[in-house]
Amino acid sequence: MSTPITTPTAAESASNQGVVRRQYVSLAHTKVTVDDVFWAPRLRANRERTIGHIYRQCLETGRIDAFKPGWNPGPEIKKQGIPVLFWDSDTAKWIEAASYTLATAHDAQLDSLLDSVIDLIAKAQQPDGYLNTWFTAVEPEKRWTNLRDWHELYCAGHMTEAAVAHYEATGKRSLLDVVCRYADYIETVFGRGPEQKRGYPGHPELELALVKLYRATGEQRYLDLSRYFVDERGRQPHYYDQEARARGDDPAAYWAKSYEYNQAHCPVCEQHEVVGHAVRAVYLYSAMADLAGEDGNPELLNACRRLWRHLTTKRMYVMGGIGTSKHNEGFTGDYDLPNESAYAETCAAIGLVFWAQRMLQLDLDGNYGDILELALYNAVISGVSLDGEAFFYDNPLASHGTHHRQPWFNCPCCPPNLARLLASLGEYVYAQSDTDAVVHLYVQGSGQLDIGGQTITLQQETNYPWDGAITVRVKLNQPATFGLRLRIPGWCTAPRVTVNGEPVDITSAEQGYLRIEREWQNGDAVTLELPMPVERVYAHPAVGTDIGQVTLRRGPIVYCLEQVDNTAPLNYILLPETAELEHHFEPDLLNGVVAITGSAAVLDDADWNDKLYRTAPPRTEPCTFTAIPYYAWDNRQPGAMRVWIRTGPQTQG
Amino acid sequence: MSTPITTPTAAESASNQGVVRRQYVSLAHTKVTVDDVFWAPRLRANRERTIGHIYRQCLETGRIDAFKPGWNPGPEIKKQGIPVLFWDSDTAKWIEAASYTLATAHDAQLDSLLDSVIDLIAKAQQPDGYLNTWFTAVEPEKRWTNLRDWHELYCAGHMTEAAVAHYEATGKRSLLDVVCRYADYIETVFGRGPEQKRGYPGHPELELALVKLYRATGEQRYLDLSRYFVDERGRQPHYYDQEARARGDDPAAYWAKSYEYNQAHCPVCEQHEVVGHAVRAVYLYSAMADLAGEDGNPELLNACRRLWRHLTTKRMYVMGGIGTSKHNEGFTGDYDLPNESAYAETCAAIGLVFWAQRMLQLDLDGNYGDILELALYNAVISGVSLDGEAFFYDNPLASHGTHHRQPWFNCPCCPPNLARLLASLGEYVYAQSDTDAVVHLYVQGSGQLDIGGQTITLQQETNYPWDGAITVRVKLNQPATFGLRLRIPGWCTAPRVTVNGEPVDITSAEQGYLRIEREWQNGDAVTLELPMPVERVYAHPAVGTDIGQVTLRRGPIVYCLEQVDNTAPLNYILLPETAELEHHFEPDLLNGVVAITGSAAVLDDADWNDKLYRTAPPRTEPCTFTAIPYYAWDNRQPGAMRVWIRTGPQTQG
Repeated sequence: MSTPITTPTAAESASNQGVVRRQYVSLAHTKVTVDDVFWAPRLRANRERTIGHIYRQCLETGRIDAFKPGWNPGPEIKKQGIPVLFWDSDTAKWIEAASYTLATAHDAQLDSLLDSVIDLIAKAQQPDGYLNTWFTAVEPEKRWTNLRDWHELYCAGHMTEAAVAHYEATGKRSLLDVVCRYADYIETVFGRGPEQKRGYPGHPELELALVKLYRATGEQRYLDLSRYFVDERGRQPHYYDQEARARGDDPAAYWAKSYEYNQAHCPVCEQHEVVGHAVRAVYLYSAMADLAGEDGNPELLNACRRLWRHLTTKRMYVMGGIGTSKHNEGFTGDYDLPNESAYAETCAAIGLVFWAQRMLQLDLDGNYGDILELALYNAVISGVSLDGEAFFYDNPLASHGTHHRQPWFNCPCCPPNLARLLASLGEYVYAQSDTDAVVHLYVQGSGQLDIGGQTITLQQETNYPWDGAITVRVKLNQPATFGLRLRIPGWCTAPRVTVNGEPVDITSAEQGYLRIEREWQNGDAVTLELPMPVERVYAHPAVGTDIGQVTLRRGPIVYCLEQVDNTAPLNYILLPETAELEHHFEPDLLNGVVAITGSAAVLDDADWNDKLYRTAPPRTEPCTFTAIPYYAWDNRQPGAMRVWIRTGPQTQG
Repeated sequence: MSTPITTPTAAESASNQGVVRRQYVSLAHTKVTVDDVFWAPRLRANRERTIGHIYRQCLETGRIDAFKPGWNPGPEIKKQGIPVLFWDSDTAKWIEAASYTLATAHDAQLDSLLDSVIDLIAKAQQPDGYLNTWFTAVEPEKRWTNLRDWHELYCAGHMTEAAVAHYEATGKRSLLDVVCRYADYIETVFGRGPEQKRGYPGHPELELALVKLYRATGEQRYLDLSRYFVDERGRQPHYYDQEARARGDDPAAYWAKSYEYNQAHCPVCEQHEVVGHAVRAVYLYSAMADLAGEDGNPELLNACRRLWRHLTTKRMYVMGGIGTSKHNEGFTGDYDLPNESAYAETCAAIGLVFWAQRMLQLDLDGNYGDILELALYNAVISGVSLDGEAFFYDNPLASHGTHHRQPWFNCPCCPPNLARLLASLGEYVYAQSDTDAVVHLYVQGSGQLDIGGQTITLQQETNYPWDGAITVRVKLNQPATFGLRLRIPGWCTAPRVTVNGEPVDITSAEQGYLRIEREWQNGDAVTLELPMPVERVYAHPAVGTDIGQVTLRRGPIVYCLEQVDNTAPLNYILLPETAELEHHFEPDLLNGVVAITGSAAVLDDADWNDKLYRTAPPRTEPCTFTAIPYYAWDNRQPGAMRVWIRTGPQTQG
């Protein structure tokens, strides 16, 4: 492997003041307990229902059998099209999710099931290290002939993430050895050597997986391979043009028209706007952030910061969903955020969480923390039903009542992605540097950190997100001096913090994190009061579809109207600017949520007498409304839903 | 031809009280002069520019040559697809438009040009009477094999309308004899006889043309053939299924999925909702109204009334455009009236005028007159540029500035349709029964009626539609007693009418028409004062896209904002409920229009500081705005346009 051309040399790095490397390392989920009202039930459903459900789906659809010798998919399977080419990734994500679970809760049966599936996979590996069911059993002659569309390296990435998770959970190298052999083989195929293909993944994923593999094994070459893939992307002469011609295809006939679709339109450090397929984008940006943190590459970090800013100030839905269009499963134009047709794929919101987490390890900036929280509590968790066995692929912000969660999809990337995120949720709560402990999220439970060689347990007591009162207790064997960094959410305008009852000057918070350094004693208690009034949120006027509309938010939770709670047709409800908004915890509603209620007006169409147009403004009648958390909609009887509520009324009836 | 099964027998008709027949017959455009500020310039542009432009287009694109012996369209023409199959209709509509012009303004050159084109057409007619360029020269073996999609009978209809117009304008039978031979041949092919095909036009048109041919020739068999086509439509076993199978096609593979597309999903008297392709719909309904009026068939009339009500109370745009979707060039669901993607094909609005005119001949109801006027002054005339040489096919109600009139289209049905409507515009102004004279539209000029054998001239003086003051003078050789019926527009809330200065009791108006019966003396003057305040028009709340928005209307004219007149981005303009609206005639603007101006608010995005969402409502700044008539937009520099203006502001900045 030649030296990647955008990585600074050691000398350059050394002379580069202010180089940023990974410093606030996420605390592994195995060191974190989650014991709260919000996440704990979801994690239980994930562990007890979702993971089993996904395994059964993988089994019943033939995904497990695909690893068996002599697999021969029939016409029923073949007609599922492209998704069959990345079946392996679904099984891999299930292994990853199951492994995370196993790491925190012993389960001999699951352990043994994993062993058996991994055994099948290991036996499916080819003598040269190659591992892919479709391009082994069905079209072996097409191996590596279409990186652009066929997901081979994407599957390799998910298998790698699975292997690292399984190794870390169990200590077993059964799958890790397989993926190392595979990576070693991939390294021979791709690169800048004379006999190598200068290809890279059409769907980014392997790039971030290789960073994990590097960290798990300490093998520098996996990091180098990741760096090569990221660095080679979008260079000229364009590899996807070359491989298309090699197949006898006209590169201009590419269905997506532009390599923006897979963020391969130019080298990554030259990318200024988030474009194309949203999941591919955030997986790539996650890898870029990983590499920036490993290498201290300022160009790569600047590209990440620039793309983050573009995404979150121009192309993100109010609940953290990203990717406007079904057509490209991705981005369209700035401020183009239609609600009913919003794609906002669950996997894209998950990828946004991945990216935010990586950015936070470099820049401890509340902007990343706020969006991580926003996506997690809204656009991500809306993807799975309360019972854990039905899923949204796309997450519209308005529905006439025909959009519902499904047990499975032809392209079922989202269910196992949710499962692996939830099974490892703990790792988004805390981070640590050499000198500081960081609390990103307020989740009742604990985190066991190791700062400067000393074990420090942070224990949170809170009803967050339903209440903004949080106590963080410091548990230690002996007093220790370190900085405790607490995220002050951007949505909170009047936070109060005390240490052992003594107020802390909140104005010292920088970029959304308050740092308290002292010699901490065992039992020290830090309290946060994060007032959570119900707030009206408005969109930038350039978001034409949202003009004259408002979204309700309380704390990190974005609300919606669901028809089952409202007698007035949702489309007819007008929320006056001045209406008082009440909130109350409803223990029996949707497993316990804070609902928002208030008075509004409803358009009255009774006096229209079959007219389509008239000169008298529509009359309104008073009505009441109830809003529920967006993530919880479509868990009861089917019906309409709206996140953006019309403001008004213009004329009282 | 067997007896059509839904036509009442003579005995049934006689016993049927209140049978409605055609009674208020439109006055031929040759009896009408148009000498006003609004239409006269448009008619002049049509005569002097549009008709020549269309001929040149027909010539240059090969449409005229297609009638020449041995025509062999090359690949460039063939790749234009289906529209080439109905090229003949474009030439036919040009002949019709040119003939109407010739009927009112002698033009030896045009007369001779028509003769030469008609000579080509006559020579292209086959010995058996068949006349169609494509299915003679290119695919003769496919004659009559796909009535559903291939427009043969549609072309026959337009050629028939052309022939009647040419005959009536010139007295020449050159084209009339051709179409009579063609109709006679068609009558042998289609019908309920044992050897006949039970087919009917996929695109209705011939049905209404045959009624014209019947009226021009007095030949009852043409009326019978029209009645057969209308009556047979949608019956089972379905002819389009049968002909598909005969071609070896699967009827279920029909691209449009349902025969609702061409209103052939059930017999016409059983149709309750306007569905499918909008132009096909209104051409069919026009023929149904023609036949209802000829036959006094109450079922057919009731179907027309029912469909009219459905269309105008559920599926019509505020400016009289119809047909929501580009996909089927037609109707979607009730109240589904998006603005930017509105299809509202020019031809469909023209067909709505045709249908309204026919309904008015049966039911003298202002509802038909109002919609006729609305469509004519807005959705129809928007279809052609002020200079007469550029055309809209679809007429959206909002644009970001990329929608512009074109000189021609691959499927150029609209330009010659506009040309023939404008060339015959006079015939929509007046009507007459045995005892009454009717004024439908207020257009300066005159109409020469014949009531009870006496010639009566009605002379209008008015600046309508810019002013609601109208004087109708009665000119006669000797006093005569008859009823003068004047349309009182539905948009007018406080009309005043005098006869020779004496007020007339307006409350005696019935269904939108005021009848004044007296012994009229030469020079009697009836004045109408139709106050025209600027009005805000609201849509039924079920039209979700228009909630919180308003359209400005003055008299029959619907207004829009065009960017060239406004500094504020149109999308950001909020029109307060209470803002005063001024209007003033601008002689130099768009050939002279009344513009509407006023104060409004504009959303200010300067203080958003790169935020996408925030809790403070958007600020607004005061602004002024100018609205122009919708029909006149896109005649200056390109830019955005909106018919529906947001109401507000919600919060003053």
